[in-house]
Amino acid sequence: MKVLISNDDGIDSTGIAALAEEFRKFAEVTVVAPLREQSAVGHAITMKTPLRVINYYKNSELFGYAVDGTPADCIKMGVRNILKINPDIVVSGINHGSNTATNVIYSGTVSAAREAAIMDIPAIAVSVTNHHVKHFHYAAELAAHYAKIIVKLGLRPGTLLNLNVPDLPKEEIKGVLYTRQGKSKWDDIYEKRTDPYGRDYYWLTGNLVEMDETNIFDQKAISENYASVTPIHFDLTDYEELSRIAEWESKF
Amino acid sequence: MKVLISNDDGIDSTGIAALAEEFRKFAEVTVVAPLREQSAVGHAITMKTPLRVINYYKNSELFGYAVDGTPADCIKMGVRNILKINPDIVVSGINHGSNTATNVIYSGTVSAAREAAIMDIPAIAVSVTNHHVKHFHYAAELAAHYAKIIVKLGLRPGTLLNLNVPDLPKEEIKGVLYTRQGKSKWDDIYEKRTDPYGRDYYWLTGNLVEMDETNIFDQKAISENYASVTPIHFDLTDYEELSRIAEWESKF
Repeated sequence: MKVLISNDDGIDSTGIAALAEEFRKFAEVTVVAPLREQSAVGHAITMKTPLRVINYYKNSELFGYAVDGTPADCIKMGVRNILKINPDIVVSGINHGSNTATNVIYSGTVSAAREAAIMDIPAIAVSVTNHHVKHFHYAAELAAHYAKIIVKLGLRPGTLLNLNVPDLPKEEIKGVLYTRQGKSKWDDIYEKRTDPYGRDYYWLTGNLVEMDETNIFDQKAISENYASVTPIHFDLTDYEELSRIAEWESKF
Repeated sequence: MKVLISNDDGIDSTGIAALAEEFRKFAEVTVVAPLREQSAVGHAITMKTPLRVINYYKNSELFGYAVDGTPADCIKMGVRNILKINPDIVVSGINHGSNTATNVIYSGTVSAAREAAIMDIPAIAVSVTNHHVKHFHYAAELAAHYAKIIVKLGLRPGTLLNLNVPDLPKEEIKGVLYTRQGKSKWDDIYEKRTDPYGRDYYWLTGNLVEMDETNIFDQKAISENYASVTPIHFDLTDYEELSRIAEWESKF
């Protein structure tokens, strides 16, 4: 099995090291990841400036290739210029922090997997709940488990799996739930400060507000110590609303 | 009607000027847009660095507020710190270049409108086909038309309209079609070059490949000289695949 691994925390993060280690047990792994942290970059791609690719060594061995761009850039570069053929699967992560509900939109981790899905390559995004993660191991195992399932049973072209895992030892995780993306929004607060030269600047802070009342969504699953698997795609059409608005002109 | 206008081409672009001029005929307009061009940034937000807001003047009059961040940052900042209440609608554009099919994923123009939808504010993203646009006027008129409809008839919370208009005089546009997001992918090519110091670098180029066989999608509509309106949302769950993969464990 040929596997391309990327992330958004950067090629030197501990999450991607745990993921690569697990997959190297059974697959041919190529790591292509951002040179610098790229959290919350969404699905950005680099078009107006050129990219560079650097061989990245760990303990004198080639660990992978670092790209001075975004997670989506890494997938394009990894497939087109480094592997030069489609891998069997792309795995992105392990992210330090969950990517559930509305955060899926902002996530660089998910965007790497989505870029693969756009290229018709099966993909998994993997995240663990805490920003200072203690337990990567089970998340890496689960990602490997689902990678094997996907390569065997297939995933609809254009769809990827978004896997979120609580930061707990394996034995404390209650199981895996198949969920949908939850609804939430950020109650944003810009904290106003003044720089040493008297000019104002603003830091984004805020609280995540849950807006979901069902019991099958990603964030609820992980808050109850389940791992969650959500299939997501990139056809953003709201088909229900499409039927409804087609009647607008007659009403206006 | 209170309208917040933003874009991804930057506050000094001609597209946002055309949009603001049209809306100022009937609405109370606040412009909050990126200080610098932000194309293809996807749904990036700025969290690790602070933001600044600058009053932006044109012909000695305050045109709007420039934010040194992304389109999504502009909406958050515009609503939370500048307007301090929700506007009736957010309009993003007019983009120089269409935002159809897979390009919707990469688009900064769409991400500004989507950020509004996340905040439960109705929103429209507006784009005209060419990169050197000649005809902004009809696109601005259509955006105003749909803004009035939306404020009167409502749009489902979390859904926004993605409006694409051919770069033609009004009389050459055949009408408006309600469409879904098309399927396409980029056949990416990284052009390898060598810098004056002998180091390699890569520029992203490539061709867009249409992969849609239906006749109701955005890109086909504009290629046939119709304007297209696509309702899009940010629940990325692939519900069909969710039912299917729930049966995986029994098969593996």
